[in-house]
Amino acid sequence: MSVTYDVAVIGAGPAGYVSAIRCAQLGLNTVCIDDWKNEDGKASLGGTCLNVGCIPSKVLLESSENYERIQNNFPAHGITVEGLKLDVGTMLARKKKIVHTLTDGISVLLRKNKVAIIHGKASFTGGGAPWKLEVVQHDGKVESVEARHVIIATGSTPRQLPQVPVDNKRVVDNVGALDFKEVPKRLGIVGAGVIGLELGSVWRRLGSNVTLFQPNDTFLPSVDDQLAAEALRIFTRQGLAIHRGVKLSAIKVSRKNVAVEFENKEGVQKLLFDKLIVAIGRAPNAAGLDTDKVGLKFDEHGYIDVDEHCRTNLSNIYAIGDVVRGPMLAHKGSEEGVAVAELIAGQAGHVNYETIPWVIYTSPEIAWVGQTEQALKIAGVEYSKGIFPFSANGRAHTLQETTGLVKVLADAKTDRILGVHIIGPCASELIQEAVVAMEFASSSEDLARIVHAHPSLSESLHEAALGVTKRSIHI
Amino acid sequence: MSVTYDVAVIGAGPAGYVSAIRCAQLGLNTVCIDDWKNEDGKASLGGTCLNVGCIPSKVLLESSENYERIQNNFPAHGITVEGLKLDVGTMLARKKKIVHTLTDGISVLLRKNKVAIIHGKASFTGGGAPWKLEVVQHDGKVESVEARHVIIATGSTPRQLPQVPVDNKRVVDNVGALDFKEVPKRLGIVGAGVIGLELGSVWRRLGSNVTLFQPNDTFLPSVDDQLAAEALRIFTRQGLAIHRGVKLSAIKVSRKNVAVEFENKEGVQKLLFDKLIVAIGRAPNAAGLDTDKVGLKFDEHGYIDVDEHCRTNLSNIYAIGDVVRGPMLAHKGSEEGVAVAELIAGQAGHVNYETIPWVIYTSPEIAWVGQTEQALKIAGVEYSKGIFPFSANGRAHTLQETTGLVKVLADAKTDRILGVHIIGPCASELIQEAVVAMEFASSSEDLARIVHAHPSLSESLHEAALGVTKRSIHI
Repeated sequence: MSVTYDVAVIGAGPAGYVSAIRCAQLGLNTVCIDDWKNEDGKASLGGTCLNVGCIPSKVLLESSENYERIQNNFPAHGITVEGLKLDVGTMLARKKKIVHTLTDGISVLLRKNKVAIIHGKASFTGGGAPWKLEVVQHDGKVESVEARHVIIATGSTPRQLPQVPVDNKRVVDNVGALDFKEVPKRLGIVGAGVIGLELGSVWRRLGSNVTLFQPNDTFLPSVDDQLAAEALRIFTRQGLAIHRGVKLSAIKVSRKNVAVEFENKEGVQKLLFDKLIVAIGRAPNAAGLDTDKVGLKFDEHGYIDVDEHCRTNLSNIYAIGDVVRGPMLAHKGSEEGVAVAELIAGQAGHVNYETIPWVIYTSPEIAWVGQTEQALKIAGVEYSKGIFPFSANGRAHTLQETTGLVKVLADAKTDRILGVHIIGPCASELIQEAVVAMEFASSSEDLARIVHAHPSLSESLHEAALGVTKRSIHI
Repeated sequence: MSVTYDVAVIGAGPAGYVSAIRCAQLGLNTVCIDDWKNEDGKASLGGTCLNVGCIPSKVLLESSENYERIQNNFPAHGITVEGLKLDVGTMLARKKKIVHTLTDGISVLLRKNKVAIIHGKASFTGGGAPWKLEVVQHDGKVESVEARHVIIATGSTPRQLPQVPVDNKRVVDNVGALDFKEVPKRLGIVGAGVIGLELGSVWRRLGSNVTLFQPNDTFLPSVDDQLAAEALRIFTRQGLAIHRGVKLSAIKVSRKNVAVEFENKEGVQKLLFDKLIVAIGRAPNAAGLDTDKVGLKFDEHGYIDVDEHCRTNLSNIYAIGDVVRGPMLAHKGSEEGVAVAELIAGQAGHVNYETIPWVIYTSPEIAWVGQTEQALKIAGVEYSKGIFPFSANGRAHTLQETTGLVKVLADAKTDRILGVHIIGPCASELIQEAVVAMEFASSSEDLARIVHAHPSLSESLHEAALGVTKRSIHI
């Protein structure tokens, strides 16, 4: 017996599974189709984020930070150890366990919400509301699915270098870089963006000699210039060798190593690495969906073309998450997923793209929301700014984390907050206060007049807001 | 030559020094008079908070948490050590250094803002706007001060037990408890409130066998009942022995120990301790001000009587911080200090007492803002609630901190958020988002519709807000 679903969601990453749950909550008969297999060849929901992205990288960031803090931070507390050892196998087993716990959790959530799950690869076979899909399941069986609405949430895949393919042995992408069985002595990373910096930090802390290459001169171009400069200074001091303005002339993989020949202002150089991580960004992943059969439109960058409500050119087909325009952030995809579910249910779902927070989980963390100074300058917006360093924050001293600063940018005329930029401890959590403030169209004075707990790192945000009108107390 | 100041601030704790700086920023000629001497007998600004309160306790909480995490948490990461050692002297030296850095910083801030500083004990000698004060300085000199406005910010002192005086050797208050030269084997604490729990946690983590006594049956009465119950369960599991409903029948100090005889439902018992901390609350500290000479009014609990704008019964005399009604929290005092400075300068300073966050820096931390469930029930307010456990939060898993929950309480009719309660990792920082939301009179739906960074602990607050209308995604 063939069932026509109200909604078929393709992809069970943070965009897809959240959307499917919200659809089900709203009474829509929903199926979620997902093709992910984990390293054991088993179906695993959660997409890149849970399986080989956000979650496992944060697990290893925490492990490696613990390992480094014992050595760098704890002696000042009077805490000393002998015989410090790292067992990479145990560290990776913890990561695997957490990933399994969370991905299994998605499965439980979908079932609890009565979302049907099909593990397999979906493609369009025709139709037009209801749309027809064919799913080649992991066990080889082919199932036909009919749905009145389709939500495409197929995510993204890592971009590859033209010179050398990723084999996930010597030359790895995020998948391989999260699974080194031992700490590589010499680790090269192509790309000094978010993923390169996070993975580079993990392995540097564990003992790798890490070198990053990026073609551009500008470090972290989407980050506020001042914070990017601060970050470059800090990461370099931590021991990451970051080569900018680099042209990779040759990459040669041998049985023993990877030889990278590169050219920059100082001429041609060659370095040998035990492992090379390719982290040069991610491309939208809509391959294999047979979208030609239905005439789905893509933009010039390969993203599925959508309007501000994630509607594609085809009636009742939506696309969300990494496969469409906008930042490739899990929470952006999830919010789109909720919004689309609500639109399908006849509600007024929407996403405020102006207040999506960004986080880089290095140490210190970097997080921001809204506009950077350089963007405001280009746009010709007059602004005031307040800056507060964590070195003047009491809690930061207690935590031994006094590096970094908070910057609040506000419209010079209206005082409305236009952007908040944090590099420092706990930035990933501190930024949320700024997101909420901006959603309420807060002025810097509003934030300055709101009481902040003492002692807390969030006092730095308070002080930066006070600084916009030159009335910080602690600087 | 005698100068008449616009403002004399008595006390340089977080209420007083912040008020003095804000007065100076507003163009008022300001003097700050402070009597604190540190353990070396030297003048030290910052009051209880910086010298022997918030800051040093958080320093030791961090040290002790690091020490405990090596043993309890790090092995799961594959990080093992031999020969773990704690040098209490180094730990205390770090604390002292941080306290000095921050208290010296206050001195620099006051000077930078051109606030005159007098180290000594102030008392009223007469007057009536301008008021006359006499200051017995640390060097014995007596200085007369005249000021058009006086801000009293003399803080609080620890309450003592009637049975036994604090000698800060065997029987200590917060001052002595932050300075044990070695880890006491058996540590008794009278009072299981914020200070008792924080200090008890410090020494338990470092190896003390800790027993707390409280006269009441209700544990943490100002905390939401559900969180208090959760906290009691967690702290007990951590090894704190918390005896409630206890009557202390005898406390005897000998050369070797402190014997505590107490009575509860199970009868009379006696326990021996190496140290006993008395943490039974704090009393307002206005002694020695000679307020009789000017007729300053006190309330029935010994606090200086003030209205909602911190005005006393005497014209141009204000009182702020612990010495007046309201929670004894540093940030409450600071906000009052800013508000009073602005009132004196003819501005519209005010403090919103409804949105003052509370934090207990145990592990997990406890933080809240607004009303508890039990308070809403007593007030007969109909409310809805959303609860989300950290065990369903991805970031919490990566951080190995899955204990605890977030609770959002909202008005059943208007959906306006009435209270937010957090027990869990980073609660001290997470609560600030809730404070900002409540200042903007946010509904639970507002918070539910605001994007939260993934992965972050703040997603738990998002989910709890979604939970108010039964649409959490991850539970």
